[in-house]
Amino acid sequence: MMDPPHVDMSSEDPARPANPGTFLASQCGKSGHAQARVGVDFPVFVVLPAGGSGERTGLQTPKQFCLLLGRPLISYTIQAFERVSWIRSIVVVVAKENMDLMAAIIGRFRHDKVRVVPGGSTRHRSICNGVMALGEVEEEEAEEEKENKVVIIHDAVRPFVEEDLLYRVTMAAQEHGASGAIRPLVSTVIATTSEGFLDHSLERAKYRASEMPQAFMYSIIQRAYKRCTEADFDFGTECLHLVLQYCGTNAKLIEGPPTLWKVTYKRDLAAAESVIKDTLSRSACIITGGCSHARMLADSLYKAFCNLEMELDIIPDVRGDNGSRIKAWNFIQFSMNDSDLDKVEATFAAVEGTNQTLLHPVVVIVVHLRTLDRWAAEPTAFAELASAAKLRNILLYGVHLQQSKDAEHWARSLSKAAELASALIRERSEALVGQLLQT
Amino acid sequence: MMDPPHVDMSSEDPARPANPGTFLASQCGKSGHAQARVGVDFPVFVVLPAGGSGERTGLQTPKQFCLLLGRPLISYTIQAFERVSWIRSIVVVVAKENMDLMAAIIGRFRHDKVRVVPGGSTRHRSICNGVMALGEVEEEEAEEEKENKVVIIHDAVRPFVEEDLLYRVTMAAQEHGASGAIRPLVSTVIATTSEGFLDHSLERAKYRASEMPQAFMYSIIQRAYKRCTEADFDFGTECLHLVLQYCGTNAKLIEGPPTLWKVTYKRDLAAAESVIKDTLSRSACIITGGCSHARMLADSLYKAFCNLEMELDIIPDVRGDNGSRIKAWNFIQFSMNDSDLDKVEATFAAVEGTNQTLLHPVVVIVVHLRTLDRWAAEPTAFAELASAAKLRNILLYGVHLQQSKDAEHWARSLSKAAELASALIRERSEALVGQLLQT
Repeated sequence: MMDPPHVDMSSEDPARPANPGTFLASQCGKSGHAQARVGVDFPVFVVLPAGGSGERTGLQTPKQFCLLLGRPLISYTIQAFERVSWIRSIVVVVAKENMDLMAAIIGRFRHDKVRVVPGGSTRHRSICNGVMALGEVEEEEAEEEKENKVVIIHDAVRPFVEEDLLYRVTMAAQEHGASGAIRPLVSTVIATTSEGFLDHSLERAKYRASEMPQAFMYSIIQRAYKRCTEADFDFGTECLHLVLQYCGTNAKLIEGPPTLWKVTYKRDLAAAESVIKDTLSRSACIITGGCSHARMLADSLYKAFCNLEMELDIIPDVRGDNGSRIKAWNFIQFSMNDSDLDKVEATFAAVEGTNQTLLHPVVVIVVHLRTLDRWAAEPTAFAELASAAKLRNILLYGVHLQQSKDAEHWARSLSKAAELASALIRERSEALVGQLLQT
Repeated sequence: MMDPPHVDMSSEDPARPANPGTFLASQCGKSGHAQARVGVDFPVFVVLPAGGSGERTGLQTPKQFCLLLGRPLISYTIQAFERVSWIRSIVVVVAKENMDLMAAIIGRFRHDKVRVVPGGSTRHRSICNGVMALGEVEEEEAEEEKENKVVIIHDAVRPFVEEDLLYRVTMAAQEHGASGAIRPLVSTVIATTSEGFLDHSLERAKYRASEMPQAFMYSIIQRAYKRCTEADFDFGTECLHLVLQYCGTNAKLIEGPPTLWKVTYKRDLAAAESVIKDTLSRSACIITGGCSHARMLADSLYKAFCNLEMELDIIPDVRGDNGSRIKAWNFIQFSMNDSDLDKVEATFAAVEGTNQTLLHPVVVIVVHLRTLDRWAAEPTAFAELASAAKLRNILLYGVHLQQSKDAEHWARSLSKAAELASALIRERSEALVGQLLQT
């Protein structure tokens, strides 16, 4: 075996600033939002209306059930609430014909905090069903808890809501009775004449778009729904309007981030998938396998990656102390010979141990060292390993890294390997699983 | 060489309904919108303000200059106007610091109908510059033409505007003096109190979002800009409002499609790229190379593709009568031996002859027949050919199709080849160019 070109070993210092920290699990997983918020010492529940038919996407499947990286959109939204420690439980309201589908989603993705209730014929009837369901089951709770109860209402098709905003609407609702997220208007709003001409345009600065989430003292939203008319149920869309009209409560308005946007059209599904892929592809973990030669290679590849926008962590293997680092969504594993496929299996087992594959497909890229006279891996065995891994929500790809004594050629190979790994991690393509790519 | 499994030769009938027609060039190219519209017998010009800084995308590059499949967003928007035969010319208004960049884009993508003028400090000043520039150069035109002149104002970041809507706003402007596209409100619009509470919500049905394109009789928009105040220039955003206030013209409002949406955030760039990729991946052209064995293979692959949402056309080669069919964005070319790489070069030449590569990257997938004992293509030569093709905006990929006498195994190989080809066509990945993938 030949030596790779000179490698600066100073990069092995674990304290080096260029070596990024571990992955921000809070961006994707359940664990990051576990810290308790000061002051949420009252019960908070969520109602998630998901009864829409999704006509505007132009797709057969209602948009809340469309798959993004193999998981329905609504599961992402539910996850955004489940990871918040101070939220007690979530009521999802779905059309009767989708109750079974929703139950299957809850089982498959282990949404333990969720209960499903059947929807009504309009949005307000559905939300009302959810709100009333919260009242029924909580009969046994203490009187004080009942009085302080807050309910957050959100849309199933706004998956990227963050804990900070949920906290702010919740606290504002507790203080003022009701609150809601708003955004600046994107377009000028105009009033039309009955003949279809411009009547006048509104001054943009004075108006806002009312978005979700909204939050209410439970007693207030419950009262509003008990008092409102059939016309409100049939034609109304705005809960903030109901509590103003029937309870005299002026909601506190809270500026939300653009990520609140509602997945409405088919293109929004592509946009949402792109946001998820961005988050998942921010970092990767290189597993050297403990061999010093591979460690030098890893350092070289690390440098090749520096031009790409991805943070890398280098570990020898997935055992022991390194277990805490396994919370990555992407692994690049070095393989010096065919028997190393056993070590790939060890990586799979470690990844599955963290339940991450329940949430997102995890990418494992095996970098095979290839000398000019032979292939480092047998394509069929690798493809079969990859097919089996796919069923476990692990996407396995191979990259042949061609060894060379020529420094320029070697640098090109490394840079190509980094480019391929980066593209595979970004795209998470199911079709390419099991392929051995060349540098 | 072994025979493939039984193939139904009836599919060779050129009139067979299962064989789809040629690609809808109007969706992507310049030629499809060439038909003259009844009644556009007056001069129509376009002003395209493109001075925005793109703060909301969170990117360094203003969004109109962000690349989608290697081409700046604004070039797509310009193309949407250039392909309309009854539009005379387009004035693009850009910030002074981007004049050179814009000139380079116009040269590179051969936007012959476009002129660039420098923008002002606000949106209205920029549009006004564009409108006045149209007045200056047309001094020599006939008096009648001057009186009937219509100007369309659009946004550089709404690339998917269709000829039909342009026609409708143009005709309405000619009849009523002004017109503009509208869309239903996505969110409830609310009025806020000065303390940040809900004051009241607007009745959604009575209001609309004002979008682009808008169109004006030239004399009317010119007069509005001559009469309006500094405050209008500094704080106004709505041209329809200006012509109402200063010329008493109530614009005719025209319901537009959702594709009008404005590329505002980073996620919108992903959505726009997804729309373009959808359009480009609707169909592909299989080139058999004339050999009867390859023709049978093509028919088998055709059937494997039937499960995927892609229309296929089968031709023997790219010469002569088949030239008219070359207006595809994707080619699947059979290769029976290494010397067939020459035929790939012929495909490149034919594709370049149509200038298509100027607009979008064209995908060429070479399907190599592979027997168990040898590889059909030499990886290095293929990778080099692919690197060279990439510079010509042609993305070349290879797929090894493994021959088998076992019918089930053969069917699996074909279906895998179809899956790979479909994914390569959909993704148009630059990183994977030159790879030889296995079935």
